Amino acid sequence: MNNWNERKRPIRLEKRFEFDSYDQTRDFLDRLGDLCEVRKRFPDISFGKTYVNLTLQPQTDEKDAELSELEQEFAKEIDSLCD
Amino acid sequence: MNNWNERKRPIRLEKRFEFDSYDQTRDFLDRLGDLCEVRKRFPDISFGKTYVNLTLQPQTDEKDAELSELEQEFAKEIDSLCD
Repeated sequence: MNNWNERKRPIRLEKRFEFDSYDQTRDFLDRLGDLCEVRKRFPDISFGKTYVNLTLQPQTDEKDAELSELEQEFAKEIDSLCD
Repeated sequence: MNNWNERKRPIRLEKRFEFDSYDQTRDFLDRLGDLCEVRKRFPDISFGKTYVNLTLQPQTDEKDAELSELEQEFAKEIDSLCD
């Protein structure tokens, strides 16, 4: 994975994206919002003027859920928004 | 103040906005983004499918900064985005 950090309790993927300007940050958030709607996945997102922090969790309420290829694929799609 | 919580260390105003749908959440975020650009203020924002959490801090690096009318005015402007 390209700089996504796998964390536990709860298990999740996290990544911080940094940008040079607020315009770039908003552009990324717009593309990300469109992708989330297409995929019907709505991760936790926090952002400020020049950064976006993303947290991806398994789409289930099971307590012992694990990260699957679904999360890895979604993470890659998000990375591709920055290309 | 209309449901903004004043917190200390660091001093800040916080509020959680809840929405019925992702569409409404994105609409609010779009309007908020425009307002931030006009006011040149970029608060910390975190959101998920149907909520947005906002944190407003004084615009200064001074350690003993206090919340001023600027923050209160900005908070009111943000509230008005939901009218």
